[in-house]
Amino acid sequence: MSLRTTVDFLLHDWLKVNELNQRERFADHSRETFDAVLDTCERIARDKFAPFNRTVDVQEPAFDGEKVILPECTQDAHNAYVASGMLSAAQDFDIGGMQLPYTIEAAANAFFACGSVSIGAGMLTVGNANLLMAHGTELQKKVFALNEFSGRFTGTMCLSEPQAGSSLSDITTRATPDGEEFGTDPLGPRYRLKGNKMWISTGDHELSENIVHLVLAKIPDAQGKTIPGVKGISLFIVPKKLVDLESQLTGERNDVALAGLNHKLGWRGTVNTLLNFGEGKYPVRSPGLNGKGAGAIGYLVGLPGQGLRYMFHMMNEARIGVGMAATMLGLAGYYASLDYAKSRPQGRPIIAGGKDPASPQTRIIEHADIKRMLLAQKAYGEGALALELYCARLVDEQHTGDAQQADEARLLLEVLTPIAKSWPSEWCLEANSLAIQIHGGYGYTRDYAVEQYWRDNRLNMIHEGTHGIQALDLLGRKVLMEEGRGLKLLAERINATIERALPLGKETAVHANALAQALQRVGRATKMAWSTDVPAEALANAVPYMQAFGHTVLAWIWLEVELASLSDSAANMGRRHAAHFFFHYELPKISAWLNVVETRDMTCANMAEDSF
Amino acid sequence: MSLRTTVDFLLHDWLKVNELNQRERFADHSRETFDAVLDTCERIARDKFAPFNRTVDVQEPAFDGEKVILPECTQDAHNAYVASGMLSAAQDFDIGGMQLPYTIEAAANAFFACGSVSIGAGMLTVGNANLLMAHGTELQKKVFALNEFSGRFTGTMCLSEPQAGSSLSDITTRATPDGEEFGTDPLGPRYRLKGNKMWISTGDHELSENIVHLVLAKIPDAQGKTIPGVKGISLFIVPKKLVDLESQLTGERNDVALAGLNHKLGWRGTVNTLLNFGEGKYPVRSPGLNGKGAGAIGYLVGLPGQGLRYMFHMMNEARIGVGMAATMLGLAGYYASLDYAKSRPQGRPIIAGGKDPASPQTRIIEHADIKRMLLAQKAYGEGALALELYCARLVDEQHTGDAQQADEARLLLEVLTPIAKSWPSEWCLEANSLAIQIHGGYGYTRDYAVEQYWRDNRLNMIHEGTHGIQALDLLGRKVLMEEGRGLKLLAERINATIERALPLGKETAVHANALAQALQRVGRATKMAWSTDVPAEALANAVPYMQAFGHTVLAWIWLEVELASLSDSAANMGRRHAAHFFFHYELPKISAWLNVVETRDMTCANMAEDSF
Repeated sequence: MSLRTTVDFLLHDWLKVNELNQRERFADHSRETFDAVLDTCERIARDKFAPFNRTVDVQEPAFDGEKVILPECTQDAHNAYVASGMLSAAQDFDIGGMQLPYTIEAAANAFFACGSVSIGAGMLTVGNANLLMAHGTELQKKVFALNEFSGRFTGTMCLSEPQAGSSLSDITTRATPDGEEFGTDPLGPRYRLKGNKMWISTGDHELSENIVHLVLAKIPDAQGKTIPGVKGISLFIVPKKLVDLESQLTGERNDVALAGLNHKLGWRGTVNTLLNFGEGKYPVRSPGLNGKGAGAIGYLVGLPGQGLRYMFHMMNEARIGVGMAATMLGLAGYYASLDYAKSRPQGRPIIAGGKDPASPQTRIIEHADIKRMLLAQKAYGEGALALELYCARLVDEQHTGDAQQADEARLLLEVLTPIAKSWPSEWCLEANSLAIQIHGGYGYTRDYAVEQYWRDNRLNMIHEGTHGIQALDLLGRKVLMEEGRGLKLLAERINATIERALPLGKETAVHANALAQALQRVGRATKMAWSTDVPAEALANAVPYMQAFGHTVLAWIWLEVELASLSDSAANMGRRHAAHFFFHYELPKISAWLNVVETRDMTCANMAEDSF
Repeated sequence: MSLRTTVDFLLHDWLKVNELNQRERFADHSRETFDAVLDTCERIARDKFAPFNRTVDVQEPAFDGEKVILPECTQDAHNAYVASGMLSAAQDFDIGGMQLPYTIEAAANAFFACGSVSIGAGMLTVGNANLLMAHGTELQKKVFALNEFSGRFTGTMCLSEPQAGSSLSDITTRATPDGEEFGTDPLGPRYRLKGNKMWISTGDHELSENIVHLVLAKIPDAQGKTIPGVKGISLFIVPKKLVDLESQLTGERNDVALAGLNHKLGWRGTVNTLLNFGEGKYPVRSPGLNGKGAGAIGYLVGLPGQGLRYMFHMMNEARIGVGMAATMLGLAGYYASLDYAKSRPQGRPIIAGGKDPASPQTRIIEHADIKRMLLAQKAYGEGALALELYCARLVDEQHTGDAQQADEARLLLEVLTPIAKSWPSEWCLEANSLAIQIHGGYGYTRDYAVEQYWRDNRLNMIHEGTHGIQALDLLGRKVLMEEGRGLKLLAERINATIERALPLGKETAVHANALAQALQRVGRATKMAWSTDVPAEALANAVPYMQAFGHTVLAWIWLEVELASLSDSAANMGRRHAAHFFFHYELPKISAWLNVVETRDMTCANMAEDSF
């Protein structure tokens, strides 16, 4: 089925997203306005993104000493995206937004990721601006956020440093009050920043008039000391070019310098940078400071010491975004290999004694193993898409539901976000490998699209929190928080689906029972992991735990989808088949993963370094 | 442990390869001569291969219209490899060979694959020449094979065509008798070939004086018809440049033209080509034929119709070679990520309530999940290496053992070869992905080696018979042949290991029992797959069957290695740890794979095309 068919089914037949229109915030919307948004995004993705996916892979970003050079198609795609209005899809009408549910925004953005994930469609800019809307001053919103929503400026998130990737408590970027200017700038408490930030996507380019960096840094005390751990981290707005209160460029550049481009395995359409803040390449004078104010000018957001909390405020959406990107790469490979399998002749039907040389050649889609590889991709990709849209729907519940709905949605999101981020990163990457395999030798060449999907997708287990970090978050925090309420709530939702499925037919009942067992097993493993209350023992197998947890969640999602696909249309039969595949081929894998969790297996943790 | 430490351990402490020296063929050899060969290869690989692995990835083969241009390091590496004598490692002393056991040859070649798999170390040339030694005439051996062993000529295997990859019965290359010249050429029955051959590695280059193509083609009858299926396939020697009976170049070029270079995801150091045979780019006149003899000149090898059988004669070694390449890529990534993990500081120890901000940073090798990813790589890579060397040892048994040993070795190889080829292709690729993961964002850049290993390794599930083909071979032929004698023999060997392990200690006994259960389960699944005697049902889940079979074989190999590692040296404790890992984390996976085999699950096979 086409992406659009699947998206429409999930949004309407399954998630009943139109029900959101009964809420005040979305009252002006209807199926028609939602469809119009999807139509527009589908069209732009088809015309301005997909045809250039290989171009941006081959014409990597380059730095000529002054500017970052990107292929023209990137600017075209950016302009088309800006023109679509999607940057302010979720914003209020009165600031020019479309006031759309996040579910629709996420679904619409999926088309761009499917067309070309690395040309990029403004996720960072929107995340940046959303953060300012939540925690910035009115002037910061006006000067920075609104210009990001309009596409005039773009935004980045500057967290990692060369020596500090997953361990943000170890960042060394420093922010010191900007002397006499400190309290006088209407844009916020004014600091000077010095430090290096690594892995900054869209960190430098000429696509927009200005770049708004949101930078994590530590504020030293009078003795030059900082608070250890994440509590010492603050957040700053550091524009590439200085602006006035009307958000016009002053003509002066801030001291943010491109120190290098990262040359990556994939995702090459997105410029990824090492940035130097305040090293003097573009010195900014402060009146009356005699050069003491050296450093990049930054405006504090909110309160000191709250930087990471503000950053993580938007983390759920950011991680859903990564999961969605992984998902769309998985589906892009699925569609490509499905097309290929339908047209490539190879081999003959298997009969007793071998292949039948008298038969005409079959197309490879007629071979059971090719079907297995296609069905696995469908189960991974469409399952992941369903999960991401489910999570997006929870975001809407959190923002617009009543108090109880909102609280439950928040809690469910806490538990599901590590899965929404990690599961597609792992399994849609596997899907891309299967897409290559279906193409045979051709899939290993750059003449076909699938090898690039596989390379692009390999990033998703790394950025926005590695697989290992997600697993620690899940087993070390999320299933424990509020005395396990999140896990309990998820179990209730899963059990409700099981109850619905049991009476509906033989097959759904079998699946429901298998899911019930899996859920019980995950619950037991959670308890046994923590039964000694020793974090090092509980968390030694956090990743296998997350894999099993993820497969259980996906089995639930597939059962949900199955219950929405009971008619015998070709599309619904395909979805039921994929659900069947997931229950037969995938869910049983959890047993091997949970074995080591339940026994708190210390084989890995106890390995001596000199024995490797 | 270093590759050399592991190789030495496997060859001597485990496989007792010195015992081969008691056989007449290897009587002149000793531990010292074996060590000298390994020393030489280790040194050349370190000096001429490893430093240039990135170079050959970046400087892809290019065609200037006349010649294929390769980076200079490729010629240097080729020359050094030729000078090592490894091309004739296994040949008789009296033709200038080293008369080495294949086990030593395979182990020595492993160093080159670890250094740079795609610079290539003559595997195709040796395979080509070996085939001629087995099936060629004395003159064909002298003129072609001996010059390949000396490195003057290189060799290719031309099987696939653009429209026929896995289905060789559908090749369309034609060979017609060369008129009056047919029976008069001392080099063999002379044919003219026309057709296109795809995916031909080392198909064109200037590394050697000449290239000896071994080409599969069909001989039409007087009506122009060919025998359908593989029985119509014959084998031809088609030199790039024509030679005289003294193997000197005549100065005339044969009609073999480079039609294109394949631009691949990885393995870029090896030129991979589309070749046109007999399309007239380099016409070769035959005296007295008035141009009727157009086509590339080819000399028949052996008998007509036996081409595929001859080609497959060498298939075991070729597939062990692929498995070994995959293995060495896996280990190369393991060593790189182990180094990185030992030196990269990141994060802090986990204590109750989270991470301990007061502790100094740990190196990432101290984190349990990093250890898990290292131990998995070790278990995959060293386990695969042990399997490959075990299979190589069987090749020696087959060639130099007594009648019963030889017959059993032959049969075991039939069963094990699909695993030796497929298992490392799948799991050492996974190892490479883990090596990237350990490097975090850095692993995703081309500044580190690991992304290239991952790209290079993706080929191995495709070439020399795809994963799907290996699985059909295993479940459709190998476990059935000679009334299941191969499978029975393997089970006997595994049971012998189990018997040895049971009394040796608590841990080995636990592993032995787990292995016994797994073996029983595989046996049962084999029976149940075929219980309806319907090939389409039995083979619908051939790949999951092969995955489970492979994991069971590897568990056996790890138990074998464990039994050879009972002392408490750091290296032996590491091996026992890896065995433990395999039994705890990996072997339990077989259950999910075998479920669908035992039930002859037709979920995939029954999926309707319009439901995808």
